Amino acid sequence: MIVLKNVHEMKEFIKESKSKGKKIGFVPTMGFLHEGHLALVDRAKPENDLVVMSIFVNPLQFGPNEDFERYPRDEEHDYKLAKDTGVDVLFIPGVDDIYPKALSIHMTVKERVNVLCGKKREGHFDGVVTVLTKLFHIIEPDAAYFGLKDAQQVAVVEGLVEDFFFPIEIVRVPTVREREGLAKSSRNVYLSDQERIEAPVIYHSLTNAANSLCNNKGDIKSVLQELRQCIELNTSGIVEYVDAYTFPSLTLPKQIKGEILIAVAVQFKQARLIDNIIVDLG
Amino acid sequence: MIVLKNVHEMKEFIKESKSKGKKIGFVPTMGFLHEGHLALVDRAKPENDLVVMSIFVNPLQFGPNEDFERYPRDEEHDYKLAKDTGVDVLFIPGVDDIYPKALSIHMTVKERVNVLCGKKREGHFDGVVTVLTKLFHIIEPDAAYFGLKDAQQVAVVEGLVEDFFFPIEIVRVPTVREREGLAKSSRNVYLSDQERIEAPVIYHSLTNAANSLCNNKGDIKSVLQELRQCIELNTSGIVEYVDAYTFPSLTLPKQIKGEILIAVAVQFKQARLIDNIIVDLG
Repeated sequence: MIVLKNVHEMKEFIKESKSKGKKIGFVPTMGFLHEGHLALVDRAKPENDLVVMSIFVNPLQFGPNEDFERYPRDEEHDYKLAKDTGVDVLFIPGVDDIYPKALSIHMTVKERVNVLCGKKREGHFDGVVTVLTKLFHIIEPDAAYFGLKDAQQVAVVEGLVEDFFFPIEIVRVPTVREREGLAKSSRNVYLSDQERIEAPVIYHSLTNAANSLCNNKGDIKSVLQELRQCIELNTSGIVEYVDAYTFPSLTLPKQIKGEILIAVAVQFKQARLIDNIIVDLG
Repeated sequence: MIVLKNVHEMKEFIKESKSKGKKIGFVPTMGFLHEGHLALVDRAKPENDLVVMSIFVNPLQFGPNEDFERYPRDEEHDYKLAKDTGVDVLFIPGVDDIYPKALSIHMTVKERVNVLCGKKREGHFDGVVTVLTKLFHIIEPDAAYFGLKDAQQVAVVEGLVEDFFFPIEIVRVPTVREREGLAKSSRNVYLSDQERIEAPVIYHSLTNAANSLCNNKGDIKSVLQELRQCIELNTSGIVEYVDAYTFPSLTLPKQIKGEILIAVAVQFKQARLIDNIIVDLG
Protein backbone atom coordinates (compact mmCIF):
# COMPACT_ATOMS: atom_id res chain seq x y z
CA MET A 1 0.00 0.00 0.00
CA ILE A 2 1.32 3.39 -0.99
CA VAL A 3 0.83 6.28 1.42
CA LEU A 4 0.78 9.80 -0.03
CA LYS A 5 0.58 12.86 2.14
CA ASN A 6 0.30 15.83 -0.15
CA VAL A 7 -1.86 17.02 -3.00
CA HIS A 8 0.92 17.42 -5.52
CA GLU A 9 2.24 13.86 -5.05
CA MET A 10 -1.28 12.46 -5.24
CA LYS A 11 -2.01 14.37 -8.47
CA GLU A 12 1.21 13.14 -10.04
CA PHE A 13 0.41 9.56 -9.04
CA ILE A 14 -3.10 9.81 -10.51
CA LYS A 15 -1.81 11.35 -13.75
CA GLU A 16 0.56 8.42 -14.15
CA SER A 17 -2.14 5.86 -13.31
CA LYS A 18 -4.66 7.40 -15.70
CA SER A 19 -2.12 7.44 -18.51
CA LYS A 20 -1.96 3.67 -18.05
CA GLY A 21 -5.73 3.44 -18.34
CA LYS A 22 -6.28 2.38 -14.72
CA LYS A 23 -9.84 2.49 -13.41
CA ILE A 24 -9.85 4.30 -10.08
CA GLY A 25 -12.24 3.67 -7.19
CA PHE A 26 -12.31 6.23 -4.40
CA VAL A 27 -13.31 5.78 -0.76
CA PRO A 28 -13.30 9.13 1.08
CA THR A 29 -13.18 8.86 4.88
CA MET A 30 -12.40 10.88 7.98
CA GLY A 31 -10.37 7.97 9.32
CA PHE A 32 -10.97 6.06 12.56
CA LEU A 33 -11.94 3.24 10.26
CA HIS A 34 -14.54 0.61 11.09
CA GLU A 35 -16.34 -2.11 9.21
CA GLY A 36 -18.56 0.41 7.46
CA HIS A 37 -15.53 1.90 5.71
CA LEU A 38 -14.08 -1.50 4.94
CA ALA A 39 -17.33 -2.52 3.25
CA LEU A 40 -16.78 0.41 0.87
CA VAL A 41 -13.33 -0.90 0.05
CA ASP A 42 -14.67 -4.44 -0.37
CA ARG A 43 -17.17 -3.11 -2.88
CA ALA A 44 -14.65 -0.92 -4.71
CA LYS A 45 -11.95 -3.57 -4.92
CA PRO A 46 -13.34 -5.86 -7.67
CA GLU A 47 -14.81 -2.92 -9.62
CA ASN A 48 -11.54 -1.00 -10.10
CA ASP A 49 -7.87 -1.40 -10.93
CA LEU A 50 -6.86 0.88 -8.10
CA VAL A 51 -8.59 1.71 -4.83
CA VAL A 52 -7.68 5.06 -3.30
CA MET A 53 -8.82 5.83 0.24
CA SER A 54 -8.50 9.31 1.67
CA ILE A 55 -8.29 10.02 5.37
CA PHE A 56 -9.00 13.67 6.04
CA VAL A 57 -10.83 15.15 8.99
CA ASN A 58 -12.40 18.08 7.20
CA PRO A 59 -12.59 21.16 9.43
CA LEU A 60 -15.05 22.84 7.05
CA GLN A 61 -17.83 20.37 7.82
CA PHE A 62 -17.67 20.86 11.59
CA GLY A 63 -20.04 23.40 13.08
CA PRO A 64 -18.98 25.90 15.75
CA ASN A 65 -20.37 23.57 18.44
CA GLU A 66 -18.85 20.42 16.97
CA ASP A 67 -15.38 19.71 18.14
CA PHE A 68 -13.06 19.28 15.18
CA GLU A 69 -10.05 18.97 17.45
CA ARG A 70 -11.61 16.17 19.48
CA TYR A 71 -12.67 14.05 16.49
CA PRO A 72 -11.10 10.61 17.11
CA ARG A 73 -7.96 9.83 15.13
CA ASP A 74 -5.87 6.68 15.01
CA GLU A 75 -3.57 6.75 12.00
CA GLU A 76 -1.67 3.59 12.91
CA HIS A 77 -4.79 1.46 13.27
CA ASP A 78 -6.27 2.98 10.11
CA TYR A 79 -3.11 2.16 8.20
CA LYS A 80 -3.28 -1.49 9.24
CA LEU A 81 -6.99 -1.86 8.44
CA ALA A 82 -6.70 -0.12 5.07
CA LYS A 83 -3.72 -2.26 4.10
CA ASP A 84 -5.37 -5.51 5.22
CA THR A 85 -8.54 -4.69 3.26
CA GLY A 86 -6.62 -4.11 0.07
CA VAL A 87 -6.49 -0.33 -0.28
CA ASP A 88 -3.84 0.45 -2.91
CA VAL A 89 -3.22 4.10 -2.10
CA LEU A 90 -3.86 5.82 1.21
CA PHE A 91 -4.08 9.59 0.82
CA ILE A 92 -3.59 11.48 4.08
CA PRO A 93 -3.25 15.19 3.29
CA GLY A 94 -2.84 17.84 5.95
CA VAL A 95 -5.37 20.62 6.50
CA ASP A 96 -2.95 23.12 4.95
CA ASP A 97 -2.65 20.96 1.83
CA ILE A 98 -6.39 20.92 1.26
CA TYR A 99 -6.98 24.49 2.43
CA PRO A 100 -3.74 26.34 1.61
CA LYS A 101 -5.62 29.65 1.83
CA ALA A 102 -9.08 31.11 2.22
CA LEU A 103 -11.42 29.95 -0.55
CA SER A 104 -12.24 32.59 -3.13
CA ILE A 105 -15.36 30.63 -4.08
CA HIS A 106 -17.93 29.20 -1.69
CA MET A 107 -20.27 26.29 -2.32
CA THR A 108 -23.64 26.34 -0.59
CA VAL A 109 -26.03 23.40 -0.60
CA LYS A 110 -29.57 24.72 -1.03
CA GLU A 111 -31.57 21.52 -1.23
CA ARG A 112 -31.64 18.16 0.58
CA VAL A 113 -30.10 19.72 3.70
CA ASN A 114 -32.85 21.17 5.88
CA VAL A 115 -34.21 17.74 6.77
CA LEU A 116 -33.15 14.80 8.95
CA CYS A 117 -29.82 15.33 10.73
CA GLY A 118 -28.94 18.21 8.39
CA LYS A 119 -31.55 20.41 10.06
CA LYS A 120 -29.35 20.82 13.10
CA ARG A 121 -26.03 21.00 11.25
CA GLU A 122 -26.10 24.28 9.36
CA GLY A 123 -23.26 24.52 6.89
CA HIS A 124 -22.20 20.92 7.45
CA PHE A 125 -22.96 19.82 3.92
CA ASP A 126 -21.37 22.96 2.44
CA GLY A 127 -18.16 21.66 3.96
CA VAL A 128 -18.82 18.16 2.68
CA VAL A 129 -19.37 19.18 -0.96
CA THR A 130 -16.42 21.57 -0.87
CA VAL A 131 -13.95 18.97 0.29
CA LEU A 132 -15.40 16.32 -2.03
CA THR A 133 -15.10 18.65 -5.01
CA LYS A 134 -11.44 19.12 -4.14
CA LEU A 135 -10.83 15.41 -3.54
CA PHE A 136 -12.68 14.43 -6.71
CA HIS A 137 -10.39 16.74 -8.71
CA ILE A 138 -7.28 15.40 -7.01
CA ILE A 139 -8.15 11.70 -7.28
CA GLU A 140 -10.18 11.84 -10.54
CA PRO A 141 -11.97 8.59 -9.69
CA ASP A 142 -14.20 6.67 -12.06
CA ALA A 143 -16.37 5.74 -9.10
CA ALA A 144 -16.70 6.94 -5.51
CA TYR A 145 -18.18 4.84 -2.72
CA PHE A 146 -20.52 6.08 0.01
CA GLY A 147 -22.32 4.19 2.74
CA LEU A 148 -26.09 4.39 2.95
CA LYS A 149 -25.89 4.63 6.73
CA ASP A 150 -25.61 8.36 6.10
CA ALA A 151 -28.33 8.45 3.45
CA GLN A 152 -28.55 12.23 3.53
CA GLN A 153 -24.89 12.49 2.67
CA VAL A 154 -25.43 10.13 -0.26
CA ALA A 155 -28.33 12.30 -1.43
CA VAL A 156 -26.29 15.52 -1.22
CA VAL A 157 -23.32 13.93 -3.00
CA GLU A 158 -25.56 12.64 -5.77
CA GLY A 159 -26.91 16.19 -6.09
CA LEU A 160 -23.36 17.52 -6.34
CA VAL A 161 -22.41 15.10 -9.09
CA GLU A 162 -25.65 15.65 -10.99
CA ASP A 163 -25.59 19.45 -10.72
CA PHE A 164 -22.04 19.79 -11.95
CA PHE A 165 -21.79 16.79 -14.29
CA PHE A 166 -18.84 15.24 -12.46
CA PRO A 167 -17.63 12.32 -14.59
CA ILE A 168 -17.92 10.06 -11.54
CA GLU A 169 -20.27 7.24 -10.66
CA ILE A 170 -21.53 7.44 -7.09
CA VAL A 171 -21.92 3.93 -5.67
CA ARG A 172 -24.36 3.52 -2.77
CA VAL A 173 -23.10 0.82 -0.42
CA PRO A 174 -25.64 -0.84 1.92
CA THR A 175 -25.28 -0.34 5.64
CA VAL A 176 -23.24 -2.99 7.40
CA ARG A 177 -25.22 -4.61 10.24
CA GLU A 178 -24.71 -6.86 13.23
CA ARG A 179 -26.34 -10.25 13.00
CA GLU A 180 -29.46 -8.94 14.79
CA GLY A 181 -29.76 -6.11 12.29
CA LEU A 182 -28.36 -3.26 14.35
CA ALA A 183 -26.46 -0.90 12.05
CA LYS A 184 -22.74 -0.97 12.80
CA SER A 185 -21.58 2.24 14.37
CA SER A 186 -18.65 3.31 16.48
CA ARG A 187 -21.29 4.67 18.85
CA ASN A 188 -22.76 1.25 19.61
CA VAL A 189 -20.13 0.75 22.31
CA TYR A 190 -21.77 3.56 24.27
CA LEU A 191 -25.00 1.54 24.59
CA SER A 192 -25.70 -0.11 27.98
CA ASP A 193 -26.24 -3.88 28.00
CA GLN A 194 -29.99 -3.40 28.16
CA GLU A 195 -29.98 -0.77 25.37
CA ARG A 196 -27.85 -3.07 23.23
CA ILE A 197 -30.56 -5.73 23.55
CA GLU A 198 -33.27 -3.22 22.61
CA ALA A 199 -31.49 -1.42 19.78
CA PRO A 200 -32.05 -4.00 16.99
CA VAL A 201 -35.74 -3.08 17.26
CA ILE A 202 -34.89 0.05 15.25
CA TYR A 203 -34.00 -1.88 12.13
CA HIS A 204 -36.78 -4.43 12.58
CA SER A 205 -39.32 -1.61 12.83
CA LEU A 206 -37.80 -0.01 9.71
CA THR A 207 -38.14 -3.22 7.71
CA ASN A 208 -41.73 -3.62 8.93
CA ALA A 209 -42.49 -0.08 7.83
CA ALA A 210 -40.88 -0.75 4.45
CA ASN A 211 -42.98 -3.89 4.02
CA SER A 212 -46.14 -2.04 4.95
CA LEU A 213 -45.42 0.61 2.30
CA CYS A 214 -44.54 -2.01 -0.33
CA ASN A 215 -47.67 -3.97 0.34
CA ASN A 216 -49.89 -0.94 0.47
CA LYS A 217 -50.81 -1.52 4.09
CA GLY A 218 -51.37 2.12 4.91
CA ASP A 219 -50.42 5.66 3.95
CA ILE A 220 -47.03 7.11 4.81
CA LYS A 221 -48.32 8.99 7.83
CA SER A 222 -49.79 5.93 9.51
CA VAL A 223 -46.75 3.80 8.65
CA LEU A 224 -44.45 6.36 10.26
CA GLN A 225 -46.68 6.57 13.30
CA GLU A 226 -46.55 2.83 13.74
CA LEU A 227 -42.77 2.88 13.29
CA ARG A 228 -42.37 5.51 15.97
CA GLN A 229 -44.65 3.65 18.38
CA CYS A 230 -42.81 0.40 17.81
CA ILE A 231 -39.47 2.00 18.74
CA GLU A 232 -40.94 3.91 21.68
CA LEU A 233 -42.65 0.82 23.08
CA ASN A 234 -39.73 -1.55 22.68
CA THR A 235 -36.74 0.58 23.58
CA SER A 236 -35.81 3.05 26.28
CA GLY A 237 -34.52 5.45 23.62
CA ILE A 238 -36.14 8.78 22.81
CA VAL A 239 -37.15 9.13 19.17
CA GLU A 240 -35.68 12.32 17.73
CA TYR A 241 -37.26 11.92 14.32
CA VAL A 242 -39.06 9.35 12.19
CA ASP A 243 -39.36 10.72 8.69
CA ALA A 244 -39.98 9.69 5.12
CA TYR A 245 -38.66 11.53 2.07
CA THR A 246 -38.30 10.90 -1.62
CA PHE A 247 -34.78 9.71 -2.36
CA PRO A 248 -32.39 11.18 -3.31
CA SER A 249 -34.23 14.52 -3.66
CA LEU A 250 -35.35 14.47 -0.01
CA THR A 251 -38.68 16.17 -0.55
CA LEU A 252 -41.95 15.20 1.14
CA PRO A 253 -43.44 12.31 -0.84
CA LYS A 254 -46.67 13.32 -2.57
CA GLN A 255 -47.40 9.76 -3.55
CA ILE A 256 -46.19 6.28 -2.68
CA LYS A 257 -43.95 5.93 -5.74
CA GLY A 258 -40.25 5.83 -6.66
CA GLU A 259 -37.58 5.57 -4.01
CA ILE A 260 -38.69 6.50 -0.50
CA LEU A 261 -36.24 6.92 2.36
CA ILE A 262 -37.52 6.10 5.83
CA ALA A 263 -35.08 7.39 8.42
CA VAL A 264 -34.93 7.50 12.19
CA ALA A 265 -32.75 8.98 14.89
CA VAL A 266 -33.03 7.62 18.42
CA GLN A 267 -31.30 9.08 21.45
CA PHE A 268 -30.20 6.55 24.05
CA LYS A 269 -28.50 7.58 27.28
CA GLN A 270 -24.97 7.83 25.90
CA ALA A 271 -25.48 7.14 22.21
CA ARG A 272 -27.53 8.71 19.45
CA LEU A 273 -28.26 6.08 16.81
CA ILE A 274 -29.46 6.70 13.28
CA ASP A 275 -30.70 4.19 10.77
CA ASN A 276 -32.73 4.13 7.59
CA ILE A 277 -34.14 2.03 4.84
CA ILE A 278 -34.84 2.88 1.21
CA VAL A 279 -37.93 1.39 -0.38
CA ASP A 280 -38.17 1.31 -4.14
CA LEU A 281 -41.84 1.52 -5.01
CA GLY A 282 -41.20 1.63 -8.76
CA MET B 1 -15.49 19.21 -37.54
CA ILE B 2 -17.89 17.28 -35.33
CA VAL B 3 -20.86 19.15 -33.89
CA LEU B 4 -22.39 17.79 -30.68
CA LYS B 5 -25.50 19.26 -29.16
CA ASN B 6 -26.09 17.49 -25.89
CA VAL B 7 -24.22 16.71 -22.71
CA HIS B 8 -24.55 12.95 -22.92
CA GLU B 9 -23.13 12.74 -26.46
CA MET B 10 -20.29 15.05 -25.51
CA LYS B 11 -19.42 12.99 -22.43
CA GLU B 12 -19.41 9.79 -24.46
CA PHE B 13 -17.17 11.37 -27.07
CA ILE B 14 -14.73 12.59 -24.40
CA LYS B 15 -14.67 9.22 -22.66
CA GLU B 16 -13.73 7.59 -25.96
CA SER B 17 -11.09 10.25 -26.72
CA LYS B 18 -9.52 10.01 -23.28
CA SER B 19 -9.32 6.23 -23.50
CA LYS B 20 -7.16 6.78 -26.57
CA GLY B 21 -4.92 9.12 -24.56
CA LYS B 22 -5.87 12.25 -26.52
CA LYS B 23 -4.82 15.58 -25.04
CA ILE B 24 -7.82 17.90 -25.01
CA GLY B 25 -7.74 21.69 -25.33
CA PHE B 26 -10.91 23.58 -24.50
CA VAL B 27 -12.07 26.98 -25.74
CA PRO B 28 -15.29 28.06 -23.99
CA THR B 29 -17.23 30.80 -25.78
CA MET B 30 -20.66 32.40 -25.93
CA GLY B 31 -20.50 32.31 -29.72
CA PHE B 32 -20.66 35.29 -32.12
CA LEU B 33 -17.04 34.46 -32.76
CA HIS B 34 -14.39 37.03 -33.62
CA GLU B 35 -10.63 37.08 -33.92
CA GLY B 36 -10.24 37.02 -30.14
CA HIS B 37 -11.85 33.60 -29.99
CA LEU B 38 -9.91 32.36 -32.98
CA ALA B 39 -6.65 33.35 -31.30
CA LEU B 40 -7.58 30.98 -28.49
CA VAL B 41 -8.04 28.18 -31.00
CA ASP B 42 -4.76 29.07 -32.73
CA ARG B 43 -3.01 28.75 -29.40
CA ALA B 44 -4.79 25.53 -28.41
CA LYS B 45 -4.29 23.81 -31.75
CA PRO B 46 -0.57 22.91 -31.59
CA GLU B 47 -0.71 22.18 -27.85
CA ASN B 48 -3.42 19.49 -28.01
CA ASP B 49 -4.59 16.46 -29.97
CA LEU B 50 -8.15 17.68 -29.93
CA VAL B 51 -9.59 21.19 -29.69
CA VAL B 52 -13.12 21.41 -28.32
CA MET B 53 -14.95 24.72 -28.54
CA SER B 54 -18.21 25.27 -26.70
CA ILE B 55 -20.80 27.81 -27.75
CA PHE B 56 -23.21 28.45 -24.93
CA VAL B 57 -24.85 31.75 -24.02
CA ASN B 58 -25.03 31.19 -20.29
CA PRO B 59 -28.20 32.70 -18.80
CA LEU B 60 -26.77 32.43 -15.26
CA GLN B 61 -24.10 35.06 -15.91
CA PHE B 62 -26.53 37.71 -17.13
CA GLY B 63 -27.83 40.17 -14.55
CA PRO B 64 -31.49 41.21 -14.34
CA ASN B 65 -30.68 44.34 -16.39
CA GLU B 66 -28.56 42.53 -18.96
CA ASP B 67 -30.50 41.14 -21.84
CA PHE B 68 -29.80 37.45 -22.22
CA GLU B 69 -32.38 37.15 -25.00
CA ARG B 70 -30.79 39.93 -27.04
CA TYR B 71 -27.23 38.63 -26.83
CA PRO B 72 -26.09 38.32 -30.46
CA ARG B 73 -26.10 34.84 -31.96
CA ASP B 74 -25.01 33.63 -35.39
CA GLU B 75 -24.63 29.88 -35.38
CA GLU B 76 -23.98 29.56 -39.11
CA HIS B 77 -21.15 32.09 -39.13
CA ASP B 78 -19.70 30.60 -35.95
CA TYR B 79 -19.75 27.15 -37.50
CA LYS B 80 -17.79 28.37 -40.54
CA LEU B 81 -15.21 30.27 -38.49
CA ALA B 82 -14.70 27.43 -36.03
CA LYS B 83 -14.27 24.92 -38.82
CA ASP B 84 -11.87 27.12 -40.79
CA THR B 85 -9.72 27.71 -37.69
CA GLY B 86 -9.37 24.02 -37.02
CA VAL B 87 -11.77 23.34 -34.15
CA ASP B 88 -12.23 19.56 -33.96
CA VAL B 89 -15.41 19.41 -31.92
CA LEU B 90 -18.02 22.15 -31.61
CA PHE B 91 -20.21 21.68 -28.53
CA ILE B 92 -23.49 23.60 -28.71
CA PRO B 93 -25.69 22.48 -25.82
CA GLY B 94 -29.12 23.94 -25.14
CA VAL B 95 -29.96 25.77 -21.92
CA ASP B 96 -32.04 22.78 -20.78
CA ASP B 97 -29.06 20.49 -21.29
CA ILE B 98 -26.80 22.53 -19.08
CA TYR B 99 -29.50 23.48 -16.57
CA PRO B 100 -31.95 20.56 -16.62
CA LYS B 101 -33.32 21.67 -13.25
CA ALA B 102 -32.71 24.14 -10.45
CA LEU B 103 -29.24 23.75 -8.95
CA SER B 104 -29.19 22.16 -5.51
CA ILE B 105 -25.76 23.69 -4.90
CA HIS B 106 -24.77 27.31 -5.52
CA MET B 107 -21.30 28.66 -6.16
CA THR B 108 -20.53 32.17 -4.99
CA VAL B 109 -17.36 34.02 -5.87
CA LYS B 110 -16.19 35.94 -2.81
CA GLU B 111 -12.91 37.40 -4.02
CA ARG B 112 -11.61 39.09 -7.17
CA VAL B 113 -15.13 40.25 -8.10
CA ASN B 114 -15.85 43.56 -6.41
CA VAL B 115 -13.37 45.45 -8.57
CA LEU B 116 -13.12 46.59 -12.19
CA CYS B 117 -16.16 45.65 -14.32
CA GLY B 118 -17.28 43.08 -11.73
CA LYS B 119 -18.30 45.86 -9.33
CA LYS B 120 -21.35 46.60 -11.44
CA ARG B 121 -22.15 43.01 -12.36
CA GLU B 122 -23.28 41.38 -9.14
CA GLY B 123 -23.56 37.62 -9.52
CA HIS B 124 -22.02 37.65 -13.00
CA PHE B 125 -18.98 35.64 -11.99
CA ASP B 126 -21.09 33.22 -9.92
CA GLY B 127 -22.70 32.31 -13.23
CA VAL B 128 -19.33 32.10 -14.95
CA VAL B 129 -17.76 29.69 -12.45
CA THR B 130 -20.91 27.58 -12.31
CA VAL B 131 -21.09 27.03 -16.05
CA LEU B 132 -17.34 26.50 -16.29
CA THR B 133 -17.42 23.88 -13.54
CA LYS B 134 -20.09 22.06 -15.51
CA LEU B 135 -18.25 22.42 -18.83
CA PHE B 136 -14.92 21.39 -17.29
CA HIS B 137 -16.56 18.18 -16.04
CA ILE B 138 -18.19 17.48 -19.39
CA ILE B 139 -15.13 18.18 -21.56
CA GLU B 140 -12.43 17.12 -19.04
CA PRO B 141 -9.81 19.22 -20.82
CA ASP B 142 -6.09 19.12 -20.10
CA ALA B 143 -5.95 22.85 -20.81
CA ALA B 144 -8.54 25.62 -21.15
CA TYR B 145 -7.88 28.86 -23.02
CA PHE B 146 -8.98 32.32 -21.93
CA GLY B 147 -8.27 35.71 -23.44
CA LEU B 148 -6.57 38.36 -21.31
CA LYS B 149 -8.90 41.00 -22.77
CA ASP B 150 -11.18 40.02 -19.90
CA ALA B 151 -8.41 39.88 -17.31
CA GLN B 152 -10.85 39.75 -14.42
CA GLN B 153 -12.44 36.64 -15.86
CA VAL B 154 -9.00 35.04 -16.16
CA ALA B 155 -8.33 35.91 -12.51
CA VAL B 156 -11.62 34.43 -11.32
CA VAL B 157 -11.13 31.27 -13.39
CA GLU B 158 -7.62 30.83 -12.04
CA GLY B 159 -9.12 31.18 -8.55
CA LEU B 160 -11.69 28.51 -9.39
CA VAL B 161 -9.08 26.05 -10.60
CA GLU B 162 -6.77 26.75 -7.69
CA ASP B 163 -9.47 26.57 -5.00
CA PHE B 164 -10.85 23.27 -6.18
CA PHE B 165 -7.72 21.63 -7.61
CA PHE B 166 -9.20 21.16 -11.08
CA PRO B 167 -6.72 19.03 -13.06
CA ILE B 168 -6.71 21.68 -15.78
CA GLU B 169 -4.10 24.15 -16.96
CA ILE B 170 -5.52 27.62 -17.54
CA VAL B 171 -3.76 29.25 -20.49
CA ARG B 172 -3.79 33.05 -20.64
CA VAL B 173 -3.91 34.19 -24.25
CA PRO B 174 -2.76 37.75 -25.04
CA THR B 175 -5.30 40.23 -26.33
CA VAL B 176 -5.54 40.42 -30.12
CA ARG B 177 -4.96 43.95 -31.37
CA GLU B 178 -5.36 46.03 -34.50
CA ARG B 179 -2.14 47.25 -36.07
CA GLU B 180 -2.36 50.51 -34.11
CA GLY B 181 -2.73 48.64 -30.85
CA LEU B 182 -6.47 48.99 -30.31
CA ALA B 183 -7.79 45.81 -28.66
CA LYS B 184 -10.05 43.90 -31.04
CA SER B 185 -13.64 44.01 -29.90
CA SER B 186 -16.99 43.54 -31.53
CA ARG B 187 -17.83 46.92 -30.05
CA ASN B 188 -15.19 48.76 -32.10
CA VAL B 189 -17.68 49.06 -34.97
CA TYR B 190 -19.77 51.37 -32.79
CA LEU B 191 -16.94 53.94 -32.68
CA SER B 192 -17.31 57.06 -34.83
CA ASP B 193 -14.52 57.73 -37.37
CA GLN B 194 -13.01 60.31 -35.04
CA GLU B 195 -13.26 58.02 -31.99
CA ARG B 196 -11.67 55.22 -33.98
CA ILE B 197 -8.66 57.46 -34.61
CA GLU B 198 -8.43 58.37 -30.93
CA ALA B 199 -9.03 54.93 -29.42
CA PRO B 200 -5.52 53.47 -29.92
CA VAL B 201 -4.37 56.02 -27.33
CA ILE B 202 -5.80 53.71 -24.69
CA TYR B 203 -3.29 50.97 -25.36
CA HIS B 204 -0.41 53.38 -25.94
CA SER B 205 -1.11 54.99 -22.58
CA LEU B 206 -1.27 51.55 -20.96
CA THR B 207 2.13 50.57 -22.37
CA ASN B 208 3.56 53.91 -21.22
CA ALA B 209 2.20 53.27 -17.73
CA ALA B 210 3.64 49.76 -17.76
CA ASN B 211 7.04 51.12 -18.78
CA SER B 212 6.94 53.75 -16.05
CA LEU B 213 6.25 51.07 -13.43
CA CYS B 214 8.94 48.77 -14.81
CA ASN B 215 11.51 51.54 -14.83
CA ASN B 216 10.56 52.83 -11.43
CA LYS B 217 9.47 56.20 -12.83
CA GLY B 218 6.88 56.84 -10.13
CA ASP B 219 4.55 55.17 -7.65
CA ILE B 220 1.37 53.43 -8.76
CA LYS B 221 -0.85 56.36 -7.86
CA SER B 222 1.03 58.85 -10.01
CA VAL B 223 1.36 56.39 -12.88
CA LEU B 224 -2.41 55.81 -12.87
CA GLN B 225 -3.04 59.54 -12.70
CA GLU B 226 -0.85 60.11 -15.74
CA LEU B 227 -2.58 57.26 -17.56
CA ARG B 228 -5.99 58.75 -16.89
CA GLN B 229 -4.88 62.21 -18.00
CA CYS B 230 -3.35 60.84 -21.17
CA ILE B 231 -6.64 59.17 -22.18
CA GLU B 232 -8.75 62.16 -21.13
CA LEU B 233 -6.55 64.61 -23.04
CA ASN B 234 -6.26 62.59 -26.23
CA THR B 235 -9.70 61.06 -26.62
CA SER B 236 -13.29 62.23 -26.37
CA GLY B 237 -14.11 59.20 -24.21
CA ILE B 238 -15.05 59.37 -20.57
CA VAL B 239 -12.80 57.31 -18.32
CA GLU B 240 -14.92 55.01 -16.16
CA TYR B 241 -11.99 53.57 -14.24
CA VAL B 242 -8.21 53.42 -14.34
CA ASP B 243 -7.09 50.88 -11.75
CA ALA B 244 -4.13 48.75 -10.76
CA TYR B 245 -4.39 45.47 -8.90
CA THR B 246 -2.17 42.54 -8.08
CA PHE B 247 -2.77 39.76 -10.58
CA PRO B 248 -4.48 37.34 -10.39
CA SER B 249 -5.57 38.00 -6.79
CA LEU B 250 -6.93 41.46 -7.69
CA THR B 251 -6.05 43.13 -4.42
CA LEU B 252 -4.64 46.64 -4.02
CA PRO B 253 -0.89 46.41 -4.58
CA LYS B 254 1.02 47.17 -1.38
CA GLN B 255 4.30 47.25 -3.22
CA ILE B 256 5.53 47.41 -6.81
CA LYS B 257 6.25 43.68 -7.05
CA GLY B 258 4.94 40.55 -8.78
CA GLU B 259 2.31 40.76 -11.47
CA ILE B 260 0.35 44.01 -11.57
CA LEU B 261 -2.72 44.47 -13.73
CA ILE B 262 -3.41 47.95 -15.03
CA ALA B 263 -6.92 48.14 -16.43
CA VAL B 264 -9.10 50.83 -17.93
CA ALA B 265 -12.67 51.25 -19.09
CA VAL B 266 -13.53 54.17 -21.36
CA GLN B 267 -17.01 55.14 -22.40
CA PHE B 268 -17.30 56.54 -25.92
CA LYS B 269 -20.60 57.74 -27.39
CA GLN B 270 -21.84 54.32 -28.53
CA ALA B 271 -19.12 52.00 -27.31
CA ARG B 272 -17.64 51.18 -23.93
CA LEU B 273 -14.07 49.93 -24.43
CA ILE B 274 -11.97 48.03 -21.91
CA ASP B 275 -8.31 47.23 -22.09
CA ASN B 276 -5.51 46.23 -19.77
CA ILE B 277 -1.89 45.30 -19.48
CA ILE B 278 -0.13 43.02 -17.02
CA VAL B 279 3.30 44.03 -15.83
CA ASP B 280 5.52 41.42 -14.26
CA LEU B 281 7.73 43.20 -11.76
CA GLY B 282 9.39 40.01 -10.55
